[in-house]
Amino acid sequence: MSVSIDPAVAASLRGFEVPEKLGFGSVMAPVMFRATCQDGVWSGGELVPYAPLSLDPAAKVLHYAQSCFEGMKAYRTAGGVSLFRPERNAHRMAYSAERLCMPAVPEPLFMDGVKTVSAYCANLIPANSGESLYLRPFLIGTQPDLSVSASTSYEFYVIASPSEAYHAGNMRVWVERDDARAAVGGTGDAKVGGNYAASLQSIARLKKRGFDQSLWLNPGNRHTVDELSGMNFFAVMDGELHTPALNGSILEGVTRESLLMLAREQGYTVHERDIDIDDLMALVRSGTCSEAFACGTAAIISPISVLGDGNGLYELSAAPGPVAERLRSALLDIQEGRSEDAFGWMVPVDMVNLD
Amino acid sequence: MSVSIDPAVAASLRGFEVPEKLGFGSVMAPVMFRATCQDGVWSGGELVPYAPLSLDPAAKVLHYAQSCFEGMKAYRTAGGVSLFRPERNAHRMAYSAERLCMPAVPEPLFMDGVKTVSAYCANLIPANSGESLYLRPFLIGTQPDLSVSASTSYEFYVIASPSEAYHAGNMRVWVERDDARAAVGGTGDAKVGGNYAASLQSIARLKKRGFDQSLWLNPGNRHTVDELSGMNFFAVMDGELHTPALNGSILEGVTRESLLMLAREQGYTVHERDIDIDDLMALVRSGTCSEAFACGTAAIISPISVLGDGNGLYELSAAPGPVAERLRSALLDIQEGRSEDAFGWMVPVDMVNLD
Repeated sequence: MSVSIDPAVAASLRGFEVPEKLGFGSVMAPVMFRATCQDGVWSGGELVPYAPLSLDPAAKVLHYAQSCFEGMKAYRTAGGVSLFRPERNAHRMAYSAERLCMPAVPEPLFMDGVKTVSAYCANLIPANSGESLYLRPFLIGTQPDLSVSASTSYEFYVIASPSEAYHAGNMRVWVERDDARAAVGGTGDAKVGGNYAASLQSIARLKKRGFDQSLWLNPGNRHTVDELSGMNFFAVMDGELHTPALNGSILEGVTRESLLMLAREQGYTVHERDIDIDDLMALVRSGTCSEAFACGTAAIISPISVLGDGNGLYELSAAPGPVAERLRSALLDIQEGRSEDAFGWMVPVDMVNLD
Repeated sequence: MSVSIDPAVAASLRGFEVPEKLGFGSVMAPVMFRATCQDGVWSGGELVPYAPLSLDPAAKVLHYAQSCFEGMKAYRTAGGVSLFRPERNAHRMAYSAERLCMPAVPEPLFMDGVKTVSAYCANLIPANSGESLYLRPFLIGTQPDLSVSASTSYEFYVIASPSEAYHAGNMRVWVERDDARAAVGGTGDAKVGGNYAASLQSIARLKKRGFDQSLWLNPGNRHTVDELSGMNFFAVMDGELHTPALNGSILEGVTRESLLMLAREQGYTVHERDIDIDDLMALVRSGTCSEAFACGTAAIISPISVLGDGNGLYELSAAPGPVAERLRSALLDIQEGRSEDAFGWMVPVDMVNLD
């Protein structure tokens, strides 16, 4: 890109230092991308300094949770900076938006946003494997009006956070038999705020019990596995991969889909099916299920070391298991540019000269 | 109250004119009440001019819908201004907050907020019966952090809107057999944004069909009536009142509870029970069910003139029916000070001298 850089943006970038301790999603990059939509008509996008939003107290997002988001990453590669399958996130965000009666962010605008932020923040991408620039595109309804109806005005942002991997692994997972994150006929397959708000109580409860994540069951049958909060579920049984089939209440993870493609390419037999939780626990106990793991953009692959519920703990063999490890390496090697991108997943970002 | 009025607040109030056309929730009063909570410690509240909020782009409320709210009204009465059972709203908001791992707004702070806003906006309360100052207390998680966990910081606001009655009556109601507003084990009995976001698609769909509101079925059995969006459901059969029993996915409406008390006092037999939707429609067709109506703070009582679904339309006798009309009058007479407040529901607001 040959652009003249806005002085305020340049000053924000110059004044920013990446702290030593990153964590996940707490250090925010000093710039953000912004576009607005009024009555269905989108503005152009612009890169601006990261700064507080000015929202009317009656804005729909604050009362009726009219918001959706995406999670994706920019990776540092030998050739510069690349995004992983960003068009999948653009599509999913359009799907989420439609579920909440919001206008889809046009794909070129979405791509402009994630690429522009990645290009300007190239120097903020952490260098260690597993670390990356986490990108958070989000769309909010901003019309100041208290009637329960879709907003007429929207704001789209892409913010970014230099981050460590979300979870270090050896996750202790609690089977949530009481709460639900989304209903049958609800918003479970859309990436919208309400699903996450509904999950907070379960997470708080299980943390007190010494667990890390909830395993959500299908809200219709309360017996088959759906997903973890923001992560999909995989189990390895007799060397074959099993993951819940997409059923309308599971978020279709980009990492999930990519792992399925990688696993098939590597010769694994893959099953997308209903997984009964009691069957699963029996198979863990008998040793037939040798590995289980969660996957997601933030976490990549997080091995599950314990599955627990009111009836007891079901320990898995030493995590990370060989299948999880092999898939994780294969995916990270593509994302970080160490192996050939056979699927054409990586999208390079044109760099900008910030000097 | 004998207080010195903040000059900015006084200027906001002086500069405000109530427009002729009110609608519902679109005209906002020029002042608002504000308090904050950091790590569980609440600040004192303050009345400030109505102005945009400054929110970090990574604030939890924008991504994970950590927000809850209340709807209530200040009424103009002969003695001044009164609130209707505000302690019920304070309790429900505490319940909603707990469901989303948010700190409860202390009841004295909540009461201070709704009373202060009502007192300062006394002159903005519309004078016609059925009109009022709609109050919207709300609580949002503001911590800038993208991890899925409860916020450490919160902001509580009370905003207000001089409003007409929400619905004029003769509502055409569509039985929603596909979507759900909340799950079993979800947030259906809490007043949180995600329930409303999930309902928007259904509302948009039925408006295209010429209907006004969705009738939500229980997400567990998909067969019994839960509620309308933000309103509870009542039916009159053989002169007796029937309303769905609170089952965990229904919001416990303050108007619902008050109508039940009034109806019992007036000698009606009242049934809180599971109401099967197919049974209900058969009873409407046969004439056994002579009236149905929705109730809520915003709407008070809105008669339902048509119940529709894919199988056809089920018309109710000319709305408003006599039972709905009698209950509505009894409730409004108490709220607007025309009849004795036998239940002790009305809470007077101390006036301020704004001159």
